[in-house]
Amino acid sequence: MDEKTLPERSFCRTADQMRPVTLTPGVMKNADGSCLAEFGDTRVLCSATVEEGVPNWRKNAHAGWVTAEYAMLPASTNRRTPREYRGRKGRSMEIERLIGRSLRAVTRLDRLGEITITLDCDVIQADGGTRTASITGAWVALHEALKGLVERGKLPRLPLTGQVAAISAGYVGGVALLDLDYPEDSHAEVDLNLVGTDEGRIVEVQGTGERSTLDRAQLDRLLDLGQAGIERLVRLQSEATGYRL
Amino acid sequence: MDEKTLPERSFCRTADQMRPVTLTPGVMKNADGSCLAEFGDTRVLCSATVEEGVPNWRKNAHAGWVTAEYAMLPASTNRRTPREYRGRKGRSMEIERLIGRSLRAVTRLDRLGEITITLDCDVIQADGGTRTASITGAWVALHEALKGLVERGKLPRLPLTGQVAAISAGYVGGVALLDLDYPEDSHAEVDLNLVGTDEGRIVEVQGTGERSTLDRAQLDRLLDLGQAGIERLVRLQSEATGYRL
Amino acid sequence: MDEKTLPERSFCRTADQMRPVTLTPGVMKNADGSCLAEFGDTRVLCSATVEEGVPNWRKNAHAGWVTAEYAMLPASTNRRTPREYRGRKGRSMEIERLIGRSLRAVTRLDRLGEITITLDCDVIQADGGTRTASITGAWVALHEALKGLVERGKLPRLPLTGQVAAISAGYVGGVALLDLDYPEDSHAEVDLNLVGTDEGRIVEVQGTGERSTLDRAQLDRLLDLGQAGIERLVRLQSEATGYRL
Amino acid sequence: MDEKTLPERSFCRTADQMRPVTLTPGVMKNADGSCLAEFGDTRVLCSATVEEGVPNWRKNAHAGWVTAEYAMLPASTNRRTPREYRGRKGRSMEIERLIGRSLRAVTRLDRLGEITITLDCDVIQADGGTRTASITGAWVALHEALKGLVERGKLPRLPLTGQVAAISAGYVGGVALLDLDYPEDSHAEVDLNLVGTDEGRIVEVQGTGERSTLDRAQLDRLLDLGQAGIERLVRLQSEATGYRL
Amino acid sequence: MDEKTLPERSFCRTADQMRPVTLTPGVMKNADGSCLAEFGDTRVLCSATVEEGVPNWRKNAHAGWVTAEYAMLPASTNRRTPREYRGRKGRSMEIERLIGRSLRAVTRLDRLGEITITLDCDVIQADGGTRTASITGAWVALHEALKGLVERGKLPRLPLTGQVAAISAGYVGGVALLDLDYPEDSHAEVDLNLVGTDEGRIVEVQGTGERSTLDRAQLDRLLDLGQAGIERLVRLQSEATGYRL
Amino acid sequence: MDEKTLPERSFCRTADQMRPVTLTPGVMKNADGSCLAEFGDTRVLCSATVEEGVPNWRKNAHAGWVTAEYAMLPASTNRRTPREYRGRKGRSMEIERLIGRSLRAVTRLDRLGEITITLDCDVIQADGGTRTASITGAWVALHEALKGLVERGKLPRLPLTGQVAAISAGYVGGVALLDLDYPEDSHAEVDLNLVGTDEGRIVEVQGTGERSTLDRAQLDRLLDLGQAGIERLVRLQSEATGYRL
Repeated sequence: MDEKTLPERSFCRTADQMRPVTLTPGVMKNADGSCLAEFGDTRVLCSATVEEGVPNWRKNAHAGWVTAEYAMLPASTNRRTPREYRGRKGRSMEIERLIGRSLRAVTRLDRLGEITITLDCDVIQADGGTRTASITGAWVALHEALKGLVERGKLPRLPLTGQVAAISAGYVGGVALLDLDYPEDSHAEVDLNLVGTDEGRIVEVQGTGERSTLDRAQLDRLLDLGQAGIERLVRLQSEATGYRL
Repeated sequence: MDEKTLPERSFCRTADQMRPVTLTPGVMKNADGSCLAEFGDTRVLCSATVEEGVPNWRKNAHAGWVTAEYAMLPASTNRRTPREYRGRKGRSMEIERLIGRSLRAVTRLDRLGEITITLDCDVIQADGGTRTASITGAWVALHEALKGLVERGKLPRLPLTGQVAAISAGYVGGVALLDLDYPEDSHAEVDLNLVGTDEGRIVEVQGTGERSTLDRAQLDRLLDLGQAGIERLVRLQSEATGYRL
Repeated sequence: MDEKTLPERSFCRTADQMRPVTLTPGVMKNADGSCLAEFGDTRVLCSATVEEGVPNWRKNAHAGWVTAEYAMLPASTNRRTPREYRGRKGRSMEIERLIGRSLRAVTRLDRLGEITITLDCDVIQADGGTRTASITGAWVALHEALKGLVERGKLPRLPLTGQVAAISAGYVGGVALLDLDYPEDSHAEVDLNLVGTDEGRIVEVQGTGERSTLDRAQLDRLLDLGQAGIERLVRLQSEATGYRL
Repeated sequence: MDEKTLPERSFCRTADQMRPVTLTPGVMKNADGSCLAEFGDTRVLCSATVEEGVPNWRKNAHAGWVTAEYAMLPASTNRRTPREYRGRKGRSMEIERLIGRSLRAVTRLDRLGEITITLDCDVIQADGGTRTASITGAWVALHEALKGLVERGKLPRLPLTGQVAAISAGYVGGVALLDLDYPEDSHAEVDLNLVGTDEGRIVEVQGTGERSTLDRAQLDRLLDLGQAGIERLVRLQSEATGYRL
Repeated sequence: MDEKTLPERSFCRTADQMRPVTLTPGVMKNADGSCLAEFGDTRVLCSATVEEGVPNWRKNAHAGWVTAEYAMLPASTNRRTPREYRGRKGRSMEIERLIGRSLRAVTRLDRLGEITITLDCDVIQADGGTRTASITGAWVALHEALKGLVERGKLPRLPLTGQVAAISAGYVGGVALLDLDYPEDSHAEVDLNLVGTDEGRIVEVQGTGERSTLDRAQLDRLLDLGQAGIERLVRLQSEATGYRL
Repeated sequence: MDEKTLPERSFCRTADQMRPVTLTPGVMKNADGSCLAEFGDTRVLCSATVEEGVPNWRKNAHAGWVTAEYAMLPASTNRRTPREYRGRKGRSMEIERLIGRSLRAVTRLDRLGEITITLDCDVIQADGGTRTASITGAWVALHEALKGLVERGKLPRLPLTGQVAAISAGYVGGVALLDLDYPEDSHAEVDLNLVGTDEGRIVEVQGTGERSTLDRAQLDRLLDLGQAGIERLVRLQSEATGYRL
């Protein structure tokens, strides 16, 4: 790819546009909360399960816990991805830890009581940005589960301090792009994942330059792009859930 | 439940009716074949992946291999089902072996060449009959994958000897019922899974009487019910795929 | 093998004859019950161990539990079978689940108290029919363990509703045969395992046609053969244990 | 137990007597060599399997390999011993390494060709001394397997430099005893396992004083007892196999 | 802790000072390269091993590979850390992936030939900042291993594009601090790990606000602190190795 | 190597001399006790951790427990040793069981209270004799941990009956040598590990003749060498700890 030549993007996007995003809550009959998060061709099924009790190491903290599991269906990727029966992959564990931290950042664990909420993020189809779709959809599923607890009188009010959503940005062929799809991600020199709140604050920033490095100006450009994307995503979350509308 | 009192069935079914069945092929962009199989609220995503080579123990057989993997999304069940990272469950392995045998029964492995086709059956939502939905949907996904090989000139013609589908039947409260949903399955005295072909022949029969036992007349009644169900399922497969229409 | 030509069977058997069967109880000094089950050259050592308590998921059921483990000695087979240290084999788990279900079908779990009885079925020598020998011998071991509980005053009476035994049948070269040995099993077009009671009722039926399929008439023929075999096996169990003599 | 009071031993033995020992070769139809080794109530089934090839790290050594696996049937012990599916036990691995080293000490690996012989030692019943019975029986099974290779013309002559056998000795209540059974072993202050050859040489000596310690005079007494025991065991091996008779 | 009150830091540091850092190369006799990296009481032993060949998925890339493993000695932490025999911890896998990416960012893999260099980072003592000490020390160990390859004529010149080092920064009690030790890290509202080159460019940035969130101005302050720290670390690396002095 | 020709030994040693031995206590800030044990180039970091409670099977014994874990850093050996994530190695488990037994032989478990002391022996550099250095250093670490318990008033007095140390001896080229280094160990015909107390008593003796066998005279010579070595080691332990000076 020539430097500075804007590549043709999927869905005829400009450099600072996201793919079409759809957040569909309530798709799972048996889960306490759920959301199908679609970022273009990337589809992640996020489910929230509420269970009594907390992990052993949280005992006596008089608080709840929010955690996440992330997995890809074998056929979600172009080349079949083996199930992780013979040992977890570092990438999956890294992503599920990120999802958990992101959701805990906006949850009042001290107001949950001794329950554990598990967010299962199962990638049905992968086309780049599965971790950002997971976080964005998991918040919707978490919201649905918490609303249910309030409605059934288990909690006095929503123990949320706000919304959390995530988006990627990166340099591809020298151009800063928002929301990389898989082909873009595979060619990116530098790749940033940004997790932020509805109040414009940063929860996590993970920038990686395995193929290249970046300077502060480039980092700033990616952060600008990402923050604009998150602004849009939290609006979509509000529309899907009615939260803070 | 009183003996012989017909329980009210989901979807207002009579004893010999199946739940609404939908077979939607082509739902996965990255898979070689796919089918979303829905039996009432049970939803299984079946994907077929074609890979070069065969397992070590099949080397030198000058033939291909068809195998299956079965897993449940954690939130597919009423009570969250843990992922099988710490050891496979016997039930899952039993089911994926059954799916593999069923599909091989109608596949001309000797005409496949040295390729392996893996059928991933991932239960999105579980409401009884996940193994029968898996087999029925997996055949559609397999058909799509094989058709693709024929269309791309990798195979001269479809290496299938016919269709294979599966349905359950059982005695609940003394009444023989077709296609048990989860509440029925939990109360069944006797439970039969039947795998059959479009020509009315039996591929597998698995009858279990853990809570009770059955006599030959009862077994015959369940086989009758099951064979009628399979007749209907293979018609739906034909409609979904155009096979033998 | 030519169709319809009766193959020469081991032990000069006719098509509807079983191999010589020996059930020797009391062979293990440290077990609560035991039985060496021999079907021709197939030898399975079945042991019953009684332990206090039930699995976690059975807590509060106010009932006991009966379960099974199945394994083959590495040198029991013609080609050495590796031990299952690196992951259980689906076949073994399938068989041990079948053994457990079969024995529970004739055990009054609600009269056991909160104990667990584990039936270890270790194949010393394999020549076909190891699962049917396991079930048949495990019942004898279970009976011995339960009798011991009665004799030591732990149970008021035997919590058994009857006997359970198992036998295989199949089509080899187009001929229906009872009790397949290993060479027959390797060539069988269709293979049926039948588990039944001393009252002629069916506990489990598992018919598989991986190499072929079968019609209802053929299934009936195999069931007839199997039921006759089970009749003989439960008589041998009675002789070995004195039960219902 | 009072010091120096000779405890009453099983089988009415004096302090320097072994339990009745039986070595029965040829007990396994499918193995290349086998031996049921009985030391009193301890029963170990030893099988030898010959396989083409050597482990990766032995490639290019132009020599064969002899290795061992050791396992206990769950019901072999008074309290059921779980199978090692969730991780091997250090004790089992220690014993199988000892068996392997002992047999390699009398085998001319350089004359085996690139084959691997696996000695499976499966404890059917445990009453102390399972590792010594394993080594003693494994040599008989190995001899049978090697004789078979010679008879089938695969090897020009037996690649053995001699026999190897093993016995335990220990101090119980201050008295030096040969061939401890399980109750004695449980009370032993000091415990020695000796592996030796038919020429009176030592292959392995493992003395352990977890409950006490020992001085050189006591070690010498145990070595004397052990060497006398091994002398008798190699005679029994000769009688069972015809080797060096 | 009161907001904005500068806490007393270990080693009498101001907010923008690092702990005393020592990089000692050549500490392992058997490794191809090694470095003991000490950041205050944090001690990480970094070793580089050169092995022929590349992982399977890198075959045919005509390039080498650099990877890392990270582990903590059980007694390195205040509360004993169990070894990861029963399953890797997500944290460890996340850190070793970060170390690997960081080193690859400055290595010309295409000039390595088909070799794999493994950087083992073993935490001898943990007091915060083990991942940053690992990266900083691993570069020194890698440099030593590569220099050895050049000296032995295996490589024409050092395949490095520069140096890479890492440091943490975070907000504790509202104050931005450089190089957090363990007590500071445990109380940090926001925590940033920065990986950078000797040319002032960014390789990785990972900022986490599990206990709080941060705005762009705060992120900028942490990046400033971190970049100043990296400047000092690459100087220490140069002094330890002679690289670019 | 010619028989009877004294090989030139590392550190210009005679046959009955040990390598320079250094025992440095107190090297780990976070451990309850620690010792860096150096036998020539062999370096083992031994740490003792005191934890409340005992393993499940020790419950109700009204006594404590002492156990050990042994591992090698990957780069401690000439050829990189993989970490044991995919299954423990028999050798490691054998060694850690030996360390545990050795320390328990001189510990009054009945006077410990219900605590568990874990001795982590991590091999930093391996040059032969890692198990003997582990035992010798672990005693020093254990002593430091127990002294700490006494000083903090948790125990009335040191629950030790004495010291325990270990050394190897073996025949190399027909010559009996004390304290084999790695090249000697690789060529040894016969190899003995001796664990003894400060009172000259034997705790464990493990003699192995995989490449050869030995007679009683040779065993005696190795025991003499070993006991002289242990005498010197316990003196070094006393100097390092002040115990029984």
